[in-house]
Amino acid sequence: MRDVCIIGIGQTPIGEWWDKSIRQLAYEALRAAVEEAGIDRPDALFVGNMLAERLSDQAQLGALIADFAGWRGIEATTVEAACASGGVAFQAAVRAVASGAIDVAAVVGVEKMTDLVGPGVTSGLATASDADYEQIHGVTFVALNALLMRRYMHEYGVPHEAFAAFAINGHRNAVHNPNAMFRKEITLEAFKAAPMIAPPINLLDSSPICDGAAAAILAPLELARDLGGAAPIRVLASATATDCLSLHDRRDLLGLEAARLSAEKAYRQAGIEAEDVDVFEVHDAFTIMAALSLEASGFAERGCAAREAQDGAFALDGRLPIATLGGLKARGHPVGATGVYQIADVVTQLRGEAGPNQVPDAEIGMAQNIGGTGATVVTHLLAPA
Amino acid sequence: MRDVCIIGIGQTPIGEWWDKSIRQLAYEALRAAVEEAGIDRPDALFVGNMLAERLSDQAQLGALIADFAGWRGIEATTVEAACASGGVAFQAAVRAVASGAIDVAAVVGVEKMTDLVGPGVTSGLATASDADYEQIHGVTFVALNALLMRRYMHEYGVPHEAFAAFAINGHRNAVHNPNAMFRKEITLEAFKAAPMIAPPINLLDSSPICDGAAAAILAPLELARDLGGAAPIRVLASATATDCLSLHDRRDLLGLEAARLSAEKAYRQAGIEAEDVDVFEVHDAFTIMAALSLEASGFAERGCAAREAQDGAFALDGRLPIATLGGLKARGHPVGATGVYQIADVVTQLRGEAGPNQVPDAEIGMAQNIGGTGATVVTHLLAPA
Repeated sequence: MRDVCIIGIGQTPIGEWWDKSIRQLAYEALRAAVEEAGIDRPDALFVGNMLAERLSDQAQLGALIADFAGWRGIEATTVEAACASGGVAFQAAVRAVASGAIDVAAVVGVEKMTDLVGPGVTSGLATASDADYEQIHGVTFVALNALLMRRYMHEYGVPHEAFAAFAINGHRNAVHNPNAMFRKEITLEAFKAAPMIAPPINLLDSSPICDGAAAAILAPLELARDLGGAAPIRVLASATATDCLSLHDRRDLLGLEAARLSAEKAYRQAGIEAEDVDVFEVHDAFTIMAALSLEASGFAERGCAAREAQDGAFALDGRLPIATLGGLKARGHPVGATGVYQIADVVTQLRGEAGPNQVPDAEIGMAQNIGGTGATVVTHLLAPA
Repeated sequence: MRDVCIIGIGQTPIGEWWDKSIRQLAYEALRAAVEEAGIDRPDALFVGNMLAERLSDQAQLGALIADFAGWRGIEATTVEAACASGGVAFQAAVRAVASGAIDVAAVVGVEKMTDLVGPGVTSGLATASDADYEQIHGVTFVALNALLMRRYMHEYGVPHEAFAAFAINGHRNAVHNPNAMFRKEITLEAFKAAPMIAPPINLLDSSPICDGAAAAILAPLELARDLGGAAPIRVLASATATDCLSLHDRRDLLGLEAARLSAEKAYRQAGIEAEDVDVFEVHDAFTIMAALSLEASGFAERGCAAREAQDGAFALDGRLPIATLGGLKARGHPVGATGVYQIADVVTQLRGEAGPNQVPDAEIGMAQNIGGTGATVVTHLLAPA
């Protein structure tokens, strides 16, 4: 298995891009990434996307985007695992390069959600849950997360306002990120007064509906050094694990079993412990998901993550900085693109290019991308090559 | 890069399975495949599917099917390239095993199209074409293939009835395949009298709307021998290439450029020539696509495939048997599953288990799976290990 490195990243700002199509968004991110990498044309393209078939009537994004990027002819496919689509597309690219079948791989996560805001997006996002056992009852994706949050609050005696720390941290970190959707701080008072979406989840517990694309270029270590592009960042581990989709069928409702399995596999692959991670791009689609992911990954005791967040443990100057450039909450969560944005953020930190948000001495970075309410979880560990 | 072998295959009969859900169909195919392979639980699952998000409101099939198969926790994702989804999912599994990251991989192609026959399926299949430049004009997927066929007939002076040979061959070969949807022969007269779908494509030029699932289990060569399951079949080559989605933008309308690139790459990987292929599972979604695929892959001169089919060149006793167990036309074409059915059919031939349909001395088999009107093409070459 060859060592695989990231030699270029690219992102579009996240927002409401009504004037840009999926292929345009993807192209902009890829263009920036290949320029950084110093290459003209990759050997293969892996696309992470969840909703284009439903919201844009467009399948086969691999070929569509490869052609629009000027790479007609190359290998190209789409990889999907609901909101973890970006992360699993990145993993597919890593595997292709590691196997020796592909030398230079491009990966792009892209999602366009705002053209059809309303029932279209809500029912689209619901496809991440079990159609036969969850959707059939009319429960939305937010409502499923609300059930988890309600149970967490009950089980551990944690008040709702404890979760505010995740949202406040994300917004604070987004201020200096030019690609973030919400570049403004929020207060505890604003959090408490936010409109309710699905009790106890309110607007500021939730990541936004948005559009965006993020890209990365991968190459084997030796070739990365020859190409002379951006400083290569090595993929130390790439691990996916799954759980049942339905919440009612989980063995341990608040355990986020797939996150635990995925993180443990990743630590094993890299030969490290959770304590060795210096920066963690967490999947904070909702504040409850940030807490569950931190606990399942070994970064906090069960039931303690929200309270620790209140104490500043996960701020830029805390013991484990998370959502360092805004996270899903404030940078934004264009679902199928998010996993690649997380990778790009970790790369930015490991290169020391995070400006005012730089985590000092960041040597090992982790990104964890979650599909559904925890049914597919993919964890990546990165370090400078 | 490790050598990868197929150590088990499984299929459901193709038909209208109104009483079975996607997960059930997938499970049946996987169950049969793991039994052949002599394993209990793979390390990863790759799902090929095109339409579940639209027709079954279900994303994240990887985790869903892994859990239903009793493999909760394993790595699982979905890979998509329209009607080539099965083939590209198989390729992702091959890469994962070749890289050394995964030892035993399962792949299942699954599609359920008949619950919503009508506009739902027609608009779903249209997502394989370009939403902005083709669908917007109201052109269906059949109509796009009809444009290709009309041009082929005009360019090469080939009459419509020449294409009948492909359909007649497929139906003849399906008679003895217990998994085929249409196990009955058709005549030239029936072909000529068939109802028109989109001129010049008639009902018997077309593969059916249907449900089904096919699976394969992959392992590295050494492990395959240790496991002692079915006789291992080696993956000699796995090659994907792309073209633009839109027909109007093709450099060579009848050249099926992605098929040519994909086949050439595959021959190069395996170190063989087109002439060395003994059996070819062709993507005969429409008779015109069979002709174009044969020509692009080096099996016939341009403009000659249909006439050669009339002369019996591609029958079981011809120079290159195709669609040997019915092909997409008569075995059936559950779109995202088809690529894996093709692999299963090639494996059946290479094992010498095709019964009355056995191609004598078949040593090298090829499967070519096509997405859209030729935008994504994936070619696999297989041989006994």
